Amino acid sequence: MPDKAILEVCLSPALLPLYPVDDKVVVVVDVLRATTTMCVALDQGAEKVIPVETIEECMRYRGKENHILAGERNGRRVEGFDFGNSPFEFMNGVVKGKILVLTTTNGTRAIKLAQDAHQVVAGAFINFSALTRWLISEGRDTLLLCSGWRNKFNLEDTIFAGAVIHHTKEYFLVDSDAAFAAEKLYLNSRRNMMHFVKQSSHYRRLAHLGVVNDVKYCLRPDLTDVVPILKDGALMKADIRRDLEGEFFVLGPLRP
Amino acid sequence: MPDKAILEVCLSPALLPLYPVDDKVVVVVDVLRATTTMCVALDQGAEKVIPVETIEECMRYRGKENHILAGERNGRRVEGFDFGNSPFEFMNGVVKGKILVLTTTNGTRAIKLAQDAHQVVAGAFINFSALTRWLISEGRDTLLLCSGWRNKFNLEDTIFAGAVIHHTKEYFLVDSDAAFAAEKLYLNSRRNMMHFVKQSSHYRRLAHLGVVNDVKYCLRPDLTDVVPILKDGALMKADIRRDLEGEFFVLGPLRP
Repeated sequence: MPDKAILEVCLSPALLPLYPVDDKVVVVVDVLRATTTMCVALDQGAEKVIPVETIEECMRYRGKENHILAGERNGRRVEGFDFGNSPFEFMNGVVKGKILVLTTTNGTRAIKLAQDAHQVVAGAFINFSALTRWLISEGRDTLLLCSGWRNKFNLEDTIFAGAVIHHTKEYFLVDSDAAFAAEKLYLNSRRNMMHFVKQSSHYRRLAHLGVVNDVKYCLRPDLTDVVPILKDGALMKADIRRDLEGEFFVLGPLRP
Repeated sequence: MPDKAILEVCLSPALLPLYPVDDKVVVVVDVLRATTTMCVALDQGAEKVIPVETIEECMRYRGKENHILAGERNGRRVEGFDFGNSPFEFMNGVVKGKILVLTTTNGTRAIKLAQDAHQVVAGAFINFSALTRWLISEGRDTLLLCSGWRNKFNLEDTIFAGAVIHHTKEYFLVDSDAAFAAEKLYLNSRRNMMHFVKQSSHYRRLAHLGVVNDVKYCLRPDLTDVVPILKDGALMKADIRRDLEGEFFVLGPLRP
């Protein structure tokens, strides 16, 4: 039997240079709300999601057929954009068949930073089981990249990383202090994640903007089996190897 | 009454640029073992401790009267140095009246990175109560700088930061995800810190080198009332305001 692949966590995009990713799968995590929104958009039939770093870059797609501009800065919709970054905005068929061009404060930036990895996927609670099954079936060294808040550590992305570690660690070699701490924080929080996340600075930031329902939605597990994967600069649905599905049933309940 | 000062934690030296420190007290934390060793050396009568970044820089003090060279790389004593980085090496009078020139993998580097702060002090469990009392009496914005391991997050320094936060937070404004997480990890660990730290990568690194007794010593609280403070490039004993001592008795048992 081959050695297990390594599962590691990077607590801030500013620490990414410490983790060589060329040969790894990088899971970009921005639970509140970018990676959740990406899952929703693809689940709701968007053809792809183009993550861009700047508002200017996003604006270049303005008026282009079939393209929708979306994004936020500091939690607020950017002026002149069709949509913000709330997952609810992308339901009810508005993105079906469209290409979503998205820029956010932290998540889309983290994707750009990780783009040279072997593969880049997006993780959120709403695609938790689909993502973890996909990671296990890939069986490759994996880095969970927390998007944080302006390069600082954040709670919700770390808890998510801890959840992935806790529920997949028998399939990977997990051996770092960051992974250990993330798992502990997940175990601390899982009985009442909303209560825990309410103590995060990002929650207070969003609560102030009146989007508490967004937060509740972003913490709900397994609402979609979409795994967004980066191909030629855009996120699209990864192929899920249905034939392997049964094999992972032994994982048991994955719900965080 | 004036606003409370801010207490914040930086989980890795690589994140220090995110925290302006000009006007702050920075507490450098390298529990295993640099900041513990600094406390021991000053407690045992060393005149001062000069932290240097490189082995070459340390070597420049070689043969200089009254100077002792000490340090490690990857946990091992540097060849040609008088001492390594084990706190036990500096007991029994060997450093009395001497100037210790010290270089370590993480701790001394963190001190150099923080040197432009308003004040830089060294924190460890062995000076926990003295340090926290000193911080409260200063009443200034304070950053707990975890030295980590080669810029990666580490468990023992984060737990220490969490202990400081937990036991002083009524005196400061504490409002960040990193501080919240550090405190949680401290609360998770405090009933059996050795058990917890045994799961850290640094412990395994040191255990491999046969210095488990060092680790046990480094986790013992309140063995000295020395607070090492950086002045003109060297650490010396900070003045403790004895007149204020009674005022902080209300803190109650500070033992982590």
